[in-house]
Amino acid sequence: MDAPVSPLTLDACLARDAAHADVGAMRERFAPGETGTVYLDANSIGPMPASAPAAMQAVMLEGWARLRRRSWNELDWLAQPQALGAALAPLVGAGPDDVRVTDTTSVNLYKLLRHALAIAAPRRVIVLQSGVFPSNRYVAEGIAQAGLAQLRFIDDMEALPAALAADDVAVVALSHVDYRSSERLDMRALHAQIAAARALSLWDLSHSAGAVAIDLRGTGADFALGCGYKYLCGGPGAPSFVYVHPRHAEAAWPAICGWMGHADTFAFEPGFRPAPGMDRFLVGTPPVLAQVAFAAAARVWRGVDPQALEARHRSLTDTLITLVDEQCAGLGLALASPREHARRGGHVALRFEQAAPLSQALVAHRVVVSSRKPDALRLAPHPLVTTHEDLWHAVRTLRELLQTQAWRDPLYAAPTV
Amino acid sequence: MDAPVSPLTLDACLARDAAHADVGAMRERFAPGETGTVYLDANSIGPMPASAPAAMQAVMLEGWARLRRRSWNELDWLAQPQALGAALAPLVGAGPDDVRVTDTTSVNLYKLLRHALAIAAPRRVIVLQSGVFPSNRYVAEGIAQAGLAQLRFIDDMEALPAALAADDVAVVALSHVDYRSSERLDMRALHAQIAAARALSLWDLSHSAGAVAIDLRGTGADFALGCGYKYLCGGPGAPSFVYVHPRHAEAAWPAICGWMGHADTFAFEPGFRPAPGMDRFLVGTPPVLAQVAFAAAARVWRGVDPQALEARHRSLTDTLITLVDEQCAGLGLALASPREHARRGGHVALRFEQAAPLSQALVAHRVVVSSRKPDALRLAPHPLVTTHEDLWHAVRTLRELLQTQAWRDPLYAAPTV
Repeated sequence: MDAPVSPLTLDACLARDAAHADVGAMRERFAPGETGTVYLDANSIGPMPASAPAAMQAVMLEGWARLRRRSWNELDWLAQPQALGAALAPLVGAGPDDVRVTDTTSVNLYKLLRHALAIAAPRRVIVLQSGVFPSNRYVAEGIAQAGLAQLRFIDDMEALPAALAADDVAVVALSHVDYRSSERLDMRALHAQIAAARALSLWDLSHSAGAVAIDLRGTGADFALGCGYKYLCGGPGAPSFVYVHPRHAEAAWPAICGWMGHADTFAFEPGFRPAPGMDRFLVGTPPVLAQVAFAAAARVWRGVDPQALEARHRSLTDTLITLVDEQCAGLGLALASPREHARRGGHVALRFEQAAPLSQALVAHRVVVSSRKPDALRLAPHPLVTTHEDLWHAVRTLRELLQTQAWRDPLYAAPTV
Repeated sequence: MDAPVSPLTLDACLARDAAHADVGAMRERFAPGETGTVYLDANSIGPMPASAPAAMQAVMLEGWARLRRRSWNELDWLAQPQALGAALAPLVGAGPDDVRVTDTTSVNLYKLLRHALAIAAPRRVIVLQSGVFPSNRYVAEGIAQAGLAQLRFIDDMEALPAALAADDVAVVALSHVDYRSSERLDMRALHAQIAAARALSLWDLSHSAGAVAIDLRGTGADFALGCGYKYLCGGPGAPSFVYVHPRHAEAAWPAICGWMGHADTFAFEPGFRPAPGMDRFLVGTPPVLAQVAFAAAARVWRGVDPQALEARHRSLTDTLITLVDEQCAGLGLALASPREHARRGGHVALRFEQAAPLSQALVAHRVVVSSRKPDALRLAPHPLVTTHEDLWHAVRTLRELLQTQAWRDPLYAAPTV
């Protein structure tokens, strides 16, 4: 009864794992999680690097409790926004000094939109996807509410040429990967289209960075940022990363000026002088403990080839789609993500009418996924941690649940795991 | 040779410790630091609550590694900005729902200044102390640079009436306690003066919150904020706290809108609707690990009576000043802080020409202090942790150093401790 019912067998999945031994070995550098549980939620909170807890204990006991204020210098706490940025830069195709880790994604989006508006004046239109992640929309709405921009929404990329036609667009702010469908946009082609209209492009990489290879410098993208705690494994609520193409970094004062963005922070000069390059996008004192957790992930990322990451991600998500196609045919699921890997981001989305209760039932059966209204079930393997074997077990559980009825009852009490 | 040379003896210091047994017992709730070291740097990084490391390990292993995305709900991570704010509220005289813990002090100052400007329009002048902490000045300069305000600087509070005379001031943003001299302003009188000119008052409490009792509601102060990692012991780089008088919280949209400030974050509505009350000043995903450290401090603060804290602080800093007066007379030190306790904030500042090398020598001799250019030596006991006995030992070390010459040599190599 448990024998595989599809051409892609468990053995075939194990063989695929063996074929990616290089990236697969990275799995050992992460904490194991719960035995028997398959985590497909790397789009929510990425796995914990195994070295993170000990590093955190050390900094708390040695830095916070013992060295106290001396730690600012002796433990290099103020250099982490740069050091973490340099470790992440290859994953997004940035130069080593192009990226900083600081603040939250929403606060960084505020900075970047304001920076784009300052550069592009008198143009003052921000173009946004109407289905963009809500917080991104709210940030832009706040800027418009203050009278500092006008917003223009597009339903899809077909509408972009018309949105750009009036020569009034300052910046087009796009989700590189849609947080529901996982559709990945063509950064190179869209940036070229935006640049041809003399507008700036801004990319939210939250659902692609750490999952697929990104080429910010190669595509010419103007601005980018993304979440630190999803695929990048920086820890829950980790600070965000921010990128500005070097041609723009020094083109204006930052919107939010603070001492960490000053050219000489500890000179305590009476006037603000923006720091050279990306440092001006720093504001307040960095979140030391959060940085220590993120640094554990950075040590892993330094050993990862972005192309190998992309290949592993492709293999995992292609396998996942095949397994769902073969094992769950006729059970009411539809693929919501593009089939072509180049058009797909971190996760695989399935369409299912009862996505929310199905997601809960899967979690209760040790397959941690998530849902988004109205009907998206999201499965997000982590390329450095998830195995093809994991996916086989997850899809078997999915099939078994779809073949049963109990969890569809609104009064169903999921077993406690 | 080691016998006390002053009327205030070690025994008298021990007696003062015994007299504050209630607050003194709080010392056991903090990690001990290095044996034989006196930490007078609570104005830089406050001591670590003893429960913090275990709490952090638990959240990393149980929340990050095991529960993963389920932690957002099961571990209540999104409720911490409110819970931490409620724990700190009594220390600053705020209502339990008036305070949030989020972002950095500089980012929060940006939000509050912009909020004040939105409320006070068409008034657009920000009044600042010319000697304010540099980052505060930079934040305001950035707002002015963007054309959203004009700045007016005052050298001291004598200059305030003239600065308010033109009826164009939106907000007067003051450091409650000067980061160098530790001079504490009279919040009640100054707020009344500012309010009489129909301007708003904004208070940076970084060098007073957690050291002395503050009465935001009672004084009528409009806005306040402060550092989380100094006297409040939130951990290095901890998020900042922010207060808005309830009469203002809903008077405008926040300057930086984000999903955590939305009235219904997870409805994913297409339009921003500001949350009721203080929640609108939240922006992005909260820094979970930093919150866990701060929560360890919050558990301590919940048991602290603000008036007992103030009394303990007064006793410690009065003792420190007396010891310096008596033991270091004629050795080149001058008191830079006001002698009257009500006019003094967290630390005690001494004026000394070679403050920086003296500070380094003290650290090398296990008395952790700090200096600020040009000539301020800062000694910051923590009211819950430092003892009068600690101060006696610290001042004895200070006297002994002042009586020697070696550390004054620019080539002096401090002993490693």
